[in-house]
Amino acid sequence: MNHNFPRHSATLDHAERDEFVPFVHELAAIGTAIIRRHYLQGTAIELKGDDTPVTAADRRVEEVMRLLIAQRYPDHGILGEEYGMQRPDARYRWVLDPIDGTKAFVSNCFIFGTLISLLRDGRPILGAIAHPLTGHVLVGLGGGPTLLGDRVMRTRRCARLEDATLLTTSHWEMVDHRVGPAFEPLSRRARLYRSWGDCHGYFQVATGGADLMIDPVLKSWDICALVPVIEGAGGRVTGIDGGDPLTASDLLASGDPSLHAEVLRLLATP
Amino acid sequence: MNHNFPRHSATLDHAERDEFVPFVHELAAIGTAIIRRHYLQGTAIELKGDDTPVTAADRRVEEVMRLLIAQRYPDHGILGEEYGMQRPDARYRWVLDPIDGTKAFVSNCFIFGTLISLLRDGRPILGAIAHPLTGHVLVGLGGGPTLLGDRVMRTRRCARLEDATLLTTSHWEMVDHRVGPAFEPLSRRARLYRSWGDCHGYFQVATGGADLMIDPVLKSWDICALVPVIEGAGGRVTGIDGGDPLTASDLLASGDPSLHAEVLRLLATP
Repeated sequence: MNHNFPRHSATLDHAERDEFVPFVHELAAIGTAIIRRHYLQGTAIELKGDDTPVTAADRRVEEVMRLLIAQRYPDHGILGEEYGMQRPDARYRWVLDPIDGTKAFVSNCFIFGTLISLLRDGRPILGAIAHPLTGHVLVGLGGGPTLLGDRVMRTRRCARLEDATLLTTSHWEMVDHRVGPAFEPLSRRARLYRSWGDCHGYFQVATGGADLMIDPVLKSWDICALVPVIEGAGGRVTGIDGGDPLTASDLLASGDPSLHAEVLRLLATP
Repeated sequence: MNHNFPRHSATLDHAERDEFVPFVHELAAIGTAIIRRHYLQGTAIELKGDDTPVTAADRRVEEVMRLLIAQRYPDHGILGEEYGMQRPDARYRWVLDPIDGTKAFVSNCFIFGTLISLLRDGRPILGAIAHPLTGHVLVGLGGGPTLLGDRVMRTRRCARLEDATLLTTSHWEMVDHRVGPAFEPLSRRARLYRSWGDCHGYFQVATGGADLMIDPVLKSWDICALVPVIEGAGGRVTGIDGGDPLTASDLLASGDPSLHAEVLRLLATP
């Protein structure tokens, strides 16, 4: 099988790197400050139409990030989970998920994070996973590398499922997915299998701590940031059918391209 | 069914509180400092005889904690995961797990923690879960309360499994447990079901963010700290058979005593 999956992020040029990377760190730091004020404070939980939770922290972080982007880049587009799309035809578009893992957040779990990405002509050139409680900000640059502070992060090699750490967000949602009948035995074959996942699962793959992260349901505000983070670290990311992750509604990310191919093959086998 | 499960921790008196609580915070702070130096630094992983991982961080944290205890309380006993038992007949005995969740630690996941407890005449009077990456230190006092800094933490009420957030460490280890045939459908009925768990699952229950944490395999260096943390916050903790957690090899912790009774009943049904 061909392991040469195409990259889905576009290459960031030097001027874009100098301009946008410090700004992404500013957005992440401000989001972190807001979220930390709400964590473990009994923040009220509201259910949205799709039965997913939202809190005042999600809304406030996105409001503030939108305000800062609009002030600095008034001609850029913005898509966010809580407040929708502005200027969809702009060449540069920011895609924001103020709290990815709101269920973790309201369960007092540590693993949620803020996702920030920047698209140029519809392809991400920059993606960030910011973990407010620990202060880790992982930034993937289109064309590489992926940086944690000033350290270059690399995925690890792991060619065999039996040696792999496999992560997902929800076991039962994954079992109920179209590929569930193939996934369930696969999850048993993995050396270590854990859920919670959310953006932290991709953090673990990109930093070489885990090998596979699979998500049954994702929206574009989740996916756009994850693609440059994983690809910049040497990993691979596609939909669960092997297609373009940017148009997918589910995601498979792998540290080792050969394992990515093997897992796609196993999941495609009825 | 009788919901009045007995408490398994013993009450801490004022002199013990003044003497030992600041010392537990000192141990937690020093452990945290050591662990943070090792996190995401490519620390070598060694497999022990029971196939569980250990790193230089686990060993160094326990060494230093033992040194500090022996210097301050030379007649106290110490049991730790990595270096065994000293003075098993002492009236006061410290029970230590330097890194609970070493698999999470080596997977670059945030949820591992240091467990510290103090037993008097074989019953815990004090337990702490310290999360090095976020700095949270949750201290359960025998007889209550459970404190996060100076804030009193309480479990939340949740009488129905369908409304509950259920946590475990490993899905497949739980399915392979004696009660696995009853557990698997129960985990599907819960409103939210996630793994990783480890000590963070008990942190989530004790702080009112989750309702149930179940662990298929635990050792006494894990259990002793968790009992006062859960009980001090108003929750219940027993073995999976409903018996004394301090002599159990598995654990169920619940925020709501009535839900605890219901889940024990469901798990006992073949």
